[in-house]
Amino acid sequence: MSGSGKLPELATDAVLVKSAPVPDDFVEVKGIDYSKESAYNMRATDLIDSMKTMGFQASSVGQACDIINSMRSWRGKHRDELPEHEVTGEFDDEGYQKTTIFMGYTSNLISSGLRDTLRYLVQHKMVSAIVASAGGIEEDLIKVLAPTYMGEFSLPGKGLRDQGMNRIGNLLVPNDNYCKFEEWIVPVLDKCLEEQEEAMKKLGSEGLNADSDAVWTPSKLIDRLGKEINDESSVLYWAHKNKIPIFCPALTDGSIGDMLFFHTFKASPQQLRLDIVADIRKINSMSMAASHAGMIILGGGLIKHHICNACLMRNGADLAVYINTGQEFDGSDAGARPDEAVSWGKIKADAKSVKVYADVSVVFPLIVAATFAAEKPKN
Amino acid sequence: MSGSGKLPELATDAVLVKSAPVPDDFVEVKGIDYSKESAYNMRATDLIDSMKTMGFQASSVGQACDIINSMRSWRGKHRDELPEHEVTGEFDDEGYQKTTIFMGYTSNLISSGLRDTLRYLVQHKMVSAIVASAGGIEEDLIKVLAPTYMGEFSLPGKGLRDQGMNRIGNLLVPNDNYCKFEEWIVPVLDKCLEEQEEAMKKLGSEGLNADSDAVWTPSKLIDRLGKEINDESSVLYWAHKNKIPIFCPALTDGSIGDMLFFHTFKASPQQLRLDIVADIRKINSMSMAASHAGMIILGGGLIKHHICNACLMRNGADLAVYINTGQEFDGSDAGARPDEAVSWGKIKADAKSVKVYADVSVVFPLIVAATFAAEKPKN
Amino acid sequence: MSGSGKLPELATDAVLVKSAPVPDDFVEVKGIDYSKESAYNMRATDLIDSMKTMGFQASSVGQACDIINSMRSWRGKHRDELPEHEVTGEFDDEGYQKTTIFMGYTSNLISSGLRDTLRYLVQHKMVSAIVASAGGIEEDLIKVLAPTYMGEFSLPGKGLRDQGMNRIGNLLVPNDNYCKFEEWIVPVLDKCLEEQEEAMKKLGSEGLNADSDAVWTPSKLIDRLGKEINDESSVLYWAHKNKIPIFCPALTDGSIGDMLFFHTFKASPQQLRLDIVADIRKINSMSMAASHAGMIILGGGLIKHHICNACLMRNGADLAVYINTGQEFDGSDAGARPDEAVSWGKIKADAKSVKVYADVSVVFPLIVAATFAAEKPKN
Amino acid sequence: MSGSGKLPELATDAVLVKSAPVPDDFVEVKGIDYSKESAYNMRATDLIDSMKTMGFQASSVGQACDIINSMRSWRGKHRDELPEHEVTGEFDDEGYQKTTIFMGYTSNLISSGLRDTLRYLVQHKMVSAIVASAGGIEEDLIKVLAPTYMGEFSLPGKGLRDQGMNRIGNLLVPNDNYCKFEEWIVPVLDKCLEEQEEAMKKLGSEGLNADSDAVWTPSKLIDRLGKEINDESSVLYWAHKNKIPIFCPALTDGSIGDMLFFHTFKASPQQLRLDIVADIRKINSMSMAASHAGMIILGGGLIKHHICNACLMRNGADLAVYINTGQEFDGSDAGARPDEAVSWGKIKADAKSVKVYADVSVVFPLIVAATFAAEKPKN
Repeated sequence: MSGSGKLPELATDAVLVKSAPVPDDFVEVKGIDYSKESAYNMRATDLIDSMKTMGFQASSVGQACDIINSMRSWRGKHRDELPEHEVTGEFDDEGYQKTTIFMGYTSNLISSGLRDTLRYLVQHKMVSAIVASAGGIEEDLIKVLAPTYMGEFSLPGKGLRDQGMNRIGNLLVPNDNYCKFEEWIVPVLDKCLEEQEEAMKKLGSEGLNADSDAVWTPSKLIDRLGKEINDESSVLYWAHKNKIPIFCPALTDGSIGDMLFFHTFKASPQQLRLDIVADIRKINSMSMAASHAGMIILGGGLIKHHICNACLMRNGADLAVYINTGQEFDGSDAGARPDEAVSWGKIKADAKSVKVYADVSVVFPLIVAATFAAEKPKN
Repeated sequence: MSGSGKLPELATDAVLVKSAPVPDDFVEVKGIDYSKESAYNMRATDLIDSMKTMGFQASSVGQACDIINSMRSWRGKHRDELPEHEVTGEFDDEGYQKTTIFMGYTSNLISSGLRDTLRYLVQHKMVSAIVASAGGIEEDLIKVLAPTYMGEFSLPGKGLRDQGMNRIGNLLVPNDNYCKFEEWIVPVLDKCLEEQEEAMKKLGSEGLNADSDAVWTPSKLIDRLGKEINDESSVLYWAHKNKIPIFCPALTDGSIGDMLFFHTFKASPQQLRLDIVADIRKINSMSMAASHAGMIILGGGLIKHHICNACLMRNGADLAVYINTGQEFDGSDAGARPDEAVSWGKIKADAKSVKVYADVSVVFPLIVAATFAAEKPKN
Repeated sequence: MSGSGKLPELATDAVLVKSAPVPDDFVEVKGIDYSKESAYNMRATDLIDSMKTMGFQASSVGQACDIINSMRSWRGKHRDELPEHEVTGEFDDEGYQKTTIFMGYTSNLISSGLRDTLRYLVQHKMVSAIVASAGGIEEDLIKVLAPTYMGEFSLPGKGLRDQGMNRIGNLLVPNDNYCKFEEWIVPVLDKCLEEQEEAMKKLGSEGLNADSDAVWTPSKLIDRLGKEINDESSVLYWAHKNKIPIFCPALTDGSIGDMLFFHTFKASPQQLRLDIVADIRKINSMSMAASHAGMIILGGGLIKHHICNACLMRNGADLAVYINTGQEFDGSDAGARPDEAVSWGKIKADAKSVKVYADVSVVFPLIVAATFAAEKPKN
Repeated sequence: MSGSGKLPELATDAVLVKSAPVPDDFVEVKGIDYSKESAYNMRATDLIDSMKTMGFQASSVGQACDIINSMRSWRGKHRDELPEHEVTGEFDDEGYQKTTIFMGYTSNLISSGLRDTLRYLVQHKMVSAIVASAGGIEEDLIKVLAPTYMGEFSLPGKGLRDQGMNRIGNLLVPNDNYCKFEEWIVPVLDKCLEEQEEAMKKLGSEGLNADSDAVWTPSKLIDRLGKEINDESSVLYWAHKNKIPIFCPALTDGSIGDMLFFHTFKASPQQLRLDIVADIRKINSMSMAASHAGMIILGGGLIKHHICNACLMRNGADLAVYINTGQEFDGSDAGARPDEAVSWGKIKADAKSVKVYADVSVVFPLIVAATFAAEKPKN
């Protein structure tokens, strides 16, 4: 191939294709304007405003903030305008319908410093219901009893086990924390069992009926644990106080499960029971009662699917924010985009939704600072 | 910077560092030997043999096969040599202790063509217990009623919902399949409730005791579903037949949950209950009874944690294979390396373990072909 | 929410949506048929056949094999039927047009045991041109001089540096290998410079003209290195022998660059030069000459973009296989799906293409075993 | 397994392991303190302060800020204290040694709104040298000529090609932009060739010598392009103005390569040449001259390796920040942790380094707002 020859049309035609006119509503990509004072030591809302037109996940973070703000600002009819059977779901202080927000999070987020942010949302009634994995329940309680520490991802497991140090990513939890947890929870479980047995005595063979007092469920036990821990640093405490249900269908999958397992030996022949059917009825009923439904799902797995599935009962959520690191290529629900949920009727076809591909710890503090905590709450 | 000057020692010293002698036990990286006939249209065992010294995830796949073969070949004492209270766990046909293998899988794998491979393992009693997510139960049953189809990751959700086509990654499930499932399962749930109520009548206030017949658990319901489906293509059918328990603590998190939810209305004021405490006792007891324990965990989330947590009850598994696409950087249990489980006592410090970073569908068929299915089973 | 009430229509309507009839051409998901003898210790082609209908990445691997087989089997016109200026690109032994296959790979693949597979493809002229990163050139040469060893991802860097052991993922390369490489390559570079200077003497001020003998390019140097290494285990050796060009526009980005850097001091005031303009002309010209173009791109970054960009010169490749672990969410070219390349004209709109989301080491040995090496080559 | 029996010691011993005392220097995990006013609409520095003790990638982002601040604040000796041959590298206005900062970024970041942030750093001389991929050069120039627009990841490629819209993740670039770029760059290339030829006429057979004026390199051409574009929105403009070299060894791998390719036909028999050997000498020399070296590497692939390799010439960088989405499991350099670079001598064993696992667009604006742009620069 010598250096001579004429300019190849095949190539120039392909490279220099003319484009159709750019539609008027196209938005230009642009970033931070450093000529403004607000570009220095930026405030969350200014940073988010700039990120919206940056592209990639920066703009997805911006969209997530817009959607959360839509969840917060949406108002429907006044309760007085509604027929009685439609007076369901959430209302604001003035009596207008507002969004029922389902928030899900995985265990590790409670282990991390995000717990303070999650608690802030529950304390100020900014969410309506929570779905968590088992660790998301127990680690909240354990942190009241003893702290979790910073560690490193690369610390070798053998040495840690020898020291009784449990690793969660780059965090460390001394195993003593779980011993303290055992001491704290056993009397609570004793009391729960006592109540179960008392109710059974009253109800006899009708003890499993729909309106039975005898049947504990994960959400009911979690509410009790929140009451008993009685500490303002706790998500569960505020959930109890603010009547925000926390669902955790697999509550046995963690330290609480270990304690329940041990308790079966202690309590024998009696046994505390946890029924998951009543809880699926409860979360699905909340979804159906909602006049407008939003999902904020932090992480993947059970907690993601559980909220989506509940929203199917109302033919889809109206607003949805996913934040996780999962990918769709393996066909997992954890990694599925919101559009997969649209095919199932779990998100409405015309809903606003976004998936932010990021570790929650990196983006959620910023997102909250620019939305739920853009101003100090009055209450 | 001109082109002259003398050779810079700073750079040459850094670049041309001498290395310590290579230890004798170092293994050379090498790949497929194409001078051999076996390099063409390779058999699974030959391919795996070559992959072991390829590096990256190829060698991890090789390690996974070695570990699975260790699970399969391990033998302990003869049952006659053991004191009675140690005659627990699994034994081979000749009476020697063998590995208790806990296998976990996520819902999507049953939706995929891997279901046939998972069924093969259960049919031939190659695993001892299973942990699955809710979809991993119901999709097995639904596939007996109607097929799942190939689709594409990029099919838009709105059009699919309009057609009643549910997307799972690049698969499609017609929504009619779930209608058929409802028709099939409602009579089964009716029967289960009837049995619950009959037992409650007998037991009265003792209906929740440890040895109660009245209490259904997820694993007990799954076993019943396996019996009722009565089809040789089904994982649940063979699990029932071979007495291999399937655990699914959050059984309500999917279509079965939808049906149980509907059933609460149909059955009112009676209500079927599913207790998860008895199941945590059951899986933990299996772990403690095991003389040697292996884990094969396909995917992340609940199913991964649940098996690891059960193995904590025996101070750790002896052998562990994880296959998933999760990453550790977000501190999720889903993405944690086996070494994190070592810090918790869920895997023994001296255990052989490996994590294969791959979509299960890409590697597990090959792994099974080179291990469990290297030869046709006799039974 | 009590247990009574009537079955909620809102929920049943959403859950039990009817689906449109399943189109006739829908393909059922199915896996391995264990009733067949071929299901045991499976051969590559049988395994791939089963994977095609498994879904997720298993079916993507199946598609990749189909596309590669299309690359291999495609035939166009006979050379005698063509006007002279169209007698370009590749022809089979009988004179029919065949696919020009561009294969790209990243450095780490040559470090791994995949090198043998890559060499097999080049040795048997199964690809037409290669694009590699710098390490993909030098590690091939270095492996002729001394081996690479198996290591672990978690080996601490400080200890390794103290031992002069360089880590590449879970592989180790003794730094002595680079010392040996320096000894080997310096005389070659001396010779190249000598030739450059001789040609310059002849050409004088015309030394940079298009047809100059004085100008070395990366591909020309790589060809020389392949000739000099003269070893049948080497990819470069066979590329030289079979006249398969290897492009590496950033050839200075690695050990060869270190050596070229050192050489500038040794050679001063003369200096060996490597021109990248002639190489872009060369690869683009190959693309334009191709009657049919296929891409097999193993990994991301430069090597992926470079092949795609070359194929833009002919308005897109006809067939494309990407295998990598990159994700699209960060807007990187490395993670972009084939469909992004369609928007640029780098892949034709009607091309068959697939991206396999996997570490190359896990899938490429299997893919080759079921395609290029399904049978032993005659030559 | 009945509900009776005694509490199993095997399990309690494993679960309730006692831990060693917590060392005094352990840092407690904690998050945002919402009792403070600074928790609302947070400023970048306050947010970063809180993230440092949150764990997971939040704390990695905090570490990245600490390391960048170390790069900025480090000072060595005064130039007057140094022997003449050590008066190399960077000095502050008062004559003290400061950190030579190598910043790398991939093409997509210039396409995104991050371009403004990257330009800010170059405009205010906050970095010492840049390594970019080819798109990172040309897209900066093209944006001066016409804008890039927001799009979506899911837009189908065929429709876009028909409209002449090129997709980069969720961004769109009209193909007309490239036509404009061609018009702009051809005269510049003509001029460069003219200068090459003039110098060749003077130098004759010595035209390739180390100190030749005839030889263009990527960095020299980029500097010229920055001068010619002459626009304050451009990274290249400020790099030219502030004498910050931009390295791009594979400058032909993109639109500039297309234009150079076309130019070979236009210019024939003359041909513009770009030598990459002089540039490797230039970047390596900068590394060796540095009294203290820091790396800020945004993305993976060539730009990451190139900076690390340059720092090997000084036996390792002192400070390193990687931000990317790559994973180590596939053995790619793109996904390698900083500790792999330690084994090679590319990062010093005692260096402070961190890898932030995130899309750059999500974290870098925040990181810059809390470090380089924590205050408005004076100059």
